[in-house]
Amino acid sequence: MSEPAEVVRELWNRIQARDWDAAGELLAEDVVVDWPQTRERIRGRSNVIAVNRNYPEGWTIRVLRVLQDGDTAVSEVAVDHVDHGTFHAASFFEVRDGQVARGTEYWVDPPTGDPPAWRAEWVERY
Amino acid sequence: MSEPAEVVRELWNRIQARDWDAAGELLAEDVVVDWPQTRERIRGRSNVIAVNRNYPEGWTIRVLRVLQDGDTAVSEVAVDHVDHGTFHAASFFEVRDGQVARGTEYWVDPPTGDPPAWRAEWVERY
Repeated sequence: MSEPAEVVRELWNRIQARDWDAAGELLAEDVVVDWPQTRERIRGRSNVIAVNRNYPEGWTIRVLRVLQDGDTAVSEVAVDHVDHGTFHAASFFEVRDGQVARGTEYWVDPPTGDPPAWRAEWVERY
Repeated sequence: MSEPAEVVRELWNRIQARDWDAAGELLAEDVVVDWPQTRERIRGRSNVIAVNRNYPEGWTIRVLRVLQDGDTAVSEVAVDHVDHGTFHAASFFEVRDGQVARGTEYWVDPPTGDPPAWRAEWVERY
């Protein structure tokens, strides 16, 4: 398993399975993951696993698509949480030697409130 | 210009240039764009252009990367706004015949407040 898209799809599968040791095998020891929406940076395999492992429970991951271009795979996932609704993430993962070496993930919370009124005439809600 | 990544890169360039007619040429007449973070759906070229054209001014787009897999291009952009800080978007665009036919964009606002305390021991801020 060395194609970036395959590695990333399997990473999500192992996270969903809460199989933390197996998920860690798909991360480089010195992996760095950025979350721009909160300006959080997670350095190192053990920290990335710790954040996922300790994420408040009740979540189910649905992988919507995984694309690949060169060393980079991009995934789009929905995460349904029993208490908080559906989150989404678009994740850019750079893969080297079958492991994620670098990640940038755009996490989007479930909607709260209404979008800005100035654009209401051109959009619909779904 | 028919490669999806090329079309998407040029779309961002034309939006940045506020060249709305030229930007519209890169969108299918019946394009549909979803924004999952607000559950907004924008149907049709003229509505997509209207939303961009009417977005409160003061913004500058930086294209961070554009990847491509088959008919789909994925872009990562930062949008610096003079009044509101830096937004980001991860956008999946399906391109047919040199035009964007379908889009899903994950827009992330500038951070407000601190991230959840439960994960502070494993992350740093940047």
